[in-house]
Amino acid sequence: MEKFPEPLEALIKEFNKLPSIGRKTAERLVLYLLSQDAQETQLLSQALLDVKSKIRPCKICFNYTEAEECEICKDVRRDGSTVCVVGQPQELLKLEKTNEYQGLYHVLGGLISPVNGIGPEHLHIDELMRRLEAGKVREVILALDPKVDGEFTAMYLARKIKPLGIKTTQLAQGVPIGRDLEFADEVTLSRAVQGRTNL
Amino acid sequence: MEKFPEPLEALIKEFNKLPSIGRKTAERLVLYLLSQDAQETQLLSQALLDVKSKIRPCKICFNYTEAEECEICKDVRRDGSTVCVVGQPQELLKLEKTNEYQGLYHVLGGLISPVNGIGPEHLHIDELMRRLEAGKVREVILALDPKVDGEFTAMYLARKIKPLGIKTTQLAQGVPIGRDLEFADEVTLSRAVQGRTNL
Repeated sequence: MEKFPEPLEALIKEFNKLPSIGRKTAERLVLYLLSQDAQETQLLSQALLDVKSKIRPCKICFNYTEAEECEICKDVRRDGSTVCVVGQPQELLKLEKTNEYQGLYHVLGGLISPVNGIGPEHLHIDELMRRLEAGKVREVILALDPKVDGEFTAMYLARKIKPLGIKTTQLAQGVPIGRDLEFADEVTLSRAVQGRTNL
Repeated sequence: MEKFPEPLEALIKEFNKLPSIGRKTAERLVLYLLSQDAQETQLLSQALLDVKSKIRPCKICFNYTEAEECEICKDVRRDGSTVCVVGQPQELLKLEKTNEYQGLYHVLGGLISPVNGIGPEHLHIDELMRRLEAGKVREVILALDPKVDGEFTAMYLARKIKPLGIKTTQLAQGVPIGRDLEFADEVTLSRAVQGRTNL
């Protein structure tokens, strides 16, 4: 016997497909589930199906939602004159957790990445432009990864938004809080010097 | 919006229950699955249900199996006069991969562990004794973790088997192959000296 029985191997294979789960971890997960009540496995199994059947993109901002429009777009207390553009819904969630931002969002669904063959037409950029052209938005905050693809996408968007006369900003770049300055990389440090603020 | 929509949170929670999967990893897995075809998620969901409905313990040795008896117990070419005792099915699989052992197995389902409240009555020890009392077995190999619980369980079993007059052995203890001797711990080294073999 070189392998586990087929149903075990099948589940190990499925777990193994997931990011950051290798064969060894997949085996451990399966053996753990075997040691638990059948109910635990049923819960996980059902939760997987629910995610795919119940979750869809918000028709306005492409955030994850169960309804037509997401919680944020539906919330009348949010400031409709500001739109924060992010690559993925999890970045939106991260920003929400700061309680710093009260405007709306727009999820691009990725970043322009010529290396990976992702062009503007693969992202929700047309939908963003239509939102902006509607005339209510006064500021667009670009909250994109401070890396090559993010900066490229930010430049592309800034150029596209400019003719509309809408103020376009991006997140401040500088040294992260709570880290040793000694370990900050040179690019971050030089941006921090360029963007220094008055005290 | 402080959280993902409910179906996403539910799946994150379920993943988060699994060993070695923290909240962050659980989020990453869920967002990955959202980005994949619905079919992928269905495969995983179904594989989970199959494992619980199709897998059971072999009625002879308690290895995982889909049938009444496992592949190994059913295999007439295996040597029925030797039984190798392991704690868990995955250890059996590890031994099988060596192609060194041609006998049968017995899975205890754990190790005696007074600290964790696991006594002999919680393990498949009675079933092992009945197999041995049937009279066909001539050697029992104890392949248990070379740690406190494993050594305690081995001693317990050796004492219990002794009256039956069956030869009881355990895996050789010594320095692991392919590692620097310098890094071997003292207990392992002293066992290796005690158990030194002729060349």
